[in-house]
Amino acid sequence: MPRINEHYLNLRASYLFAEIRRRTKVFTDARPDARVIDLGVGDVTRPLPPAVVRAIHEAANDMAGTDTFKGYGPYTGYEWLRAEIAAQDFGTRGVALSPDEIFVSDGGKTDSASLQEIFARDAVVGLMDPVYPVYADSNVVAGRSGAADDSGRYAGMIYLPCVAENSFQPALPERRVDLIYLCYPNNPTGAVATREALARWVDYARANDAVIFYDAAYEAYIVDEDVPHSIYEIDGAREVAIESRSFSKNAGFTGMRLAYSVVPKELIGRSADGRTHSVHALWTRRVNMKSNGQPYVIQRAAAAVYTPEGSKQMRALIDFYMTNARIIRDGLAAAGFTVYGGRNAPYIWFRTPAGAGSWDFFDRMLNDVQIVGSPGAGFGPSGEGYFRLTAFGSREQTEEAVERIRTRLRP
Amino acid sequence: MPRINEHYLNLRASYLFAEIRRRTKVFTDARPDARVIDLGVGDVTRPLPPAVVRAIHEAANDMAGTDTFKGYGPYTGYEWLRAEIAAQDFGTRGVALSPDEIFVSDGGKTDSASLQEIFARDAVVGLMDPVYPVYADSNVVAGRSGAADDSGRYAGMIYLPCVAENSFQPALPERRVDLIYLCYPNNPTGAVATREALARWVDYARANDAVIFYDAAYEAYIVDEDVPHSIYEIDGAREVAIESRSFSKNAGFTGMRLAYSVVPKELIGRSADGRTHSVHALWTRRVNMKSNGQPYVIQRAAAAVYTPEGSKQMRALIDFYMTNARIIRDGLAAAGFTVYGGRNAPYIWFRTPAGAGSWDFFDRMLNDVQIVGSPGAGFGPSGEGYFRLTAFGSREQTEEAVERIRTRLRP
Repeated sequence: MPRINEHYLNLRASYLFAEIRRRTKVFTDARPDARVIDLGVGDVTRPLPPAVVRAIHEAANDMAGTDTFKGYGPYTGYEWLRAEIAAQDFGTRGVALSPDEIFVSDGGKTDSASLQEIFARDAVVGLMDPVYPVYADSNVVAGRSGAADDSGRYAGMIYLPCVAENSFQPALPERRVDLIYLCYPNNPTGAVATREALARWVDYARANDAVIFYDAAYEAYIVDEDVPHSIYEIDGAREVAIESRSFSKNAGFTGMRLAYSVVPKELIGRSADGRTHSVHALWTRRVNMKSNGQPYVIQRAAAAVYTPEGSKQMRALIDFYMTNARIIRDGLAAAGFTVYGGRNAPYIWFRTPAGAGSWDFFDRMLNDVQIVGSPGAGFGPSGEGYFRLTAFGSREQTEEAVERIRTRLRP
Repeated sequence: MPRINEHYLNLRASYLFAEIRRRTKVFTDARPDARVIDLGVGDVTRPLPPAVVRAIHEAANDMAGTDTFKGYGPYTGYEWLRAEIAAQDFGTRGVALSPDEIFVSDGGKTDSASLQEIFARDAVVGLMDPVYPVYADSNVVAGRSGAADDSGRYAGMIYLPCVAENSFQPALPERRVDLIYLCYPNNPTGAVATREALARWVDYARANDAVIFYDAAYEAYIVDEDVPHSIYEIDGAREVAIESRSFSKNAGFTGMRLAYSVVPKELIGRSADGRTHSVHALWTRRVNMKSNGQPYVIQRAAAAVYTPEGSKQMRALIDFYMTNARIIRDGLAAAGFTVYGGRNAPYIWFRTPAGAGSWDFFDRMLNDVQIVGSPGAGFGPSGEGYFRLTAFGSREQTEEAVERIRTRLRP
């Protein structure tokens, strides 16, 4: 029998969303008549924008013609898509990026999990807590931690608590870290970072030879004028930060799989002998070696989001979900819950009643009012005592969920 | 500056296909009027089968409707696709697979590069030589080698020469290896393995606690009746082999990105303490952690290949390319070259004239007859003195290439 990568044995027994699915199934198997409302996993439910659908049809027709057929595309993405991204997602905010600093990928999850590969194995990982579990897990299997304790805290990783007491803004780490995972607007807390807060992280990275993975998957949900949309709006960030974005939550692409990461050319790493190396060149090599690029049809679909019509339709999608967010936020507050997020993000984060454990409250929500949410503890130890609902349901589900909670589950 | 993964520094300076592109560009920049025929990279050129195109349109319509919209799918692939794969790709050949042993991915390249992640870092890699460069490169950056020597041989890896003298069938390794990379029909030599040859590898793996990565990306090109299509046709293979396949070269999906790997449940690994672990469970965990699955639209397109109509259209595509292969093989032989492959594979492998170096011959082909091929040395040290042409061009290009070689480039 071949020897396995034993770092996998350090992983917690089950992945958050798998455990949510498991408990939900146990419940629905026992009560098949129950009308369960799922506001757990952050999966969109509205159809694709018509401009995107049209682009898929057009791309399919291209693939049917000898002269328009597309085989392998550029491994890092078609130029016509990367140029739109550079111009519209960044240029409009005063951030100058070259299209070849943009790497089109099949998902924010993939990028979150893979970017660590090009850094040293003994790098110390610092991450917001609570946060998307993939950051920690992908570093665990890369060998950058020991096992988890009972709260889910992996030995050797530096957790940066984000709790109500610090307004969900993590303090700088007390011990030096090499790889810093930041997610704004934050999943799961819905918190955003001010320009000053981001500048503090950029300064920290510059002073400590660290690199920041900045996950901006929910950027499109920012409404407050003074909140930066990109970390590159901060001076000096191009030398220390990689930013990832996705088409999943703005254009409804969770079933389409398209995202991108920005690796600026100023980002320089070093080897033990003191020589310097372009991180941009390293990531280019990694993508060229391990990927043949993304489907032409899907890239055409994403490009449609940048047309005037597609852009307007995407904005309508976001507005729809943000109305859901307001309904949940206001409804929970009216029901007496202490509620956070849901203003610049599609996630509503709230304290469990009377200090109940996250998973206990999960079971209570499911059993008492047939609503599936996400227990805060699943996102990290500092999520204990909190709970997340998503704004990605239908309007009807969203309204009924709030009504059930208001009338049948008072804190 | 953050510390980088220094294993990247062991990689050869440039990737084979990138160097081919670079030299081609130098030539076409200097002679923009030259009519270059590209039979280098193995990229298909014929349009998608009509049944596949129709499936894309239908899937696009699904994504446009509230009730038919698809968000996140199963991370490892939709059941309706995996069931067809199990039944039609394997069941028809007497191989019983459960759909949940099939992991749908975005490409054979991705699978080739990633499957090593779940095995021990100090595993010894054995690989056919010459072969697809990704097997070696992905293990280099995972830390399983030292630097390459002048011939491109990475220190610490075990090369299994496949040359005319051994009919392109590698001998068993003299030193024990843990991870064995086999590719049949072979890229680049076009060789296939008999049942007896495969059985020898399965026996070796069973006796030596090794695991076989069996790359069957070109399986659809097998015409000889007695050549196995799957390694699972060999008794005992389920305990030691992972098999990867792709829709790229049979259904023309190079620009669509869909493939799959089979990880049987009998495949067991062990940790240093002697405990056993399911490799199937490990890979499931890896996929769940690092991927959100493949696009619904693309999976629907792949499923169309398994309809009677799609299957017939795919067969016509393969026949088209195999006619090209015969034209090249016969043409080169008539021109006096010593030719291999092209019978059960879309690649024609031949000796360079008068023992010329592969890259010298590449330059000669480009300069003298304006044909881009792939120098054998780019696939490994034992490829030196050989050259690869692909059958994936148009009929017109294929015929003209043969004519140019016959009339203007005699060996």
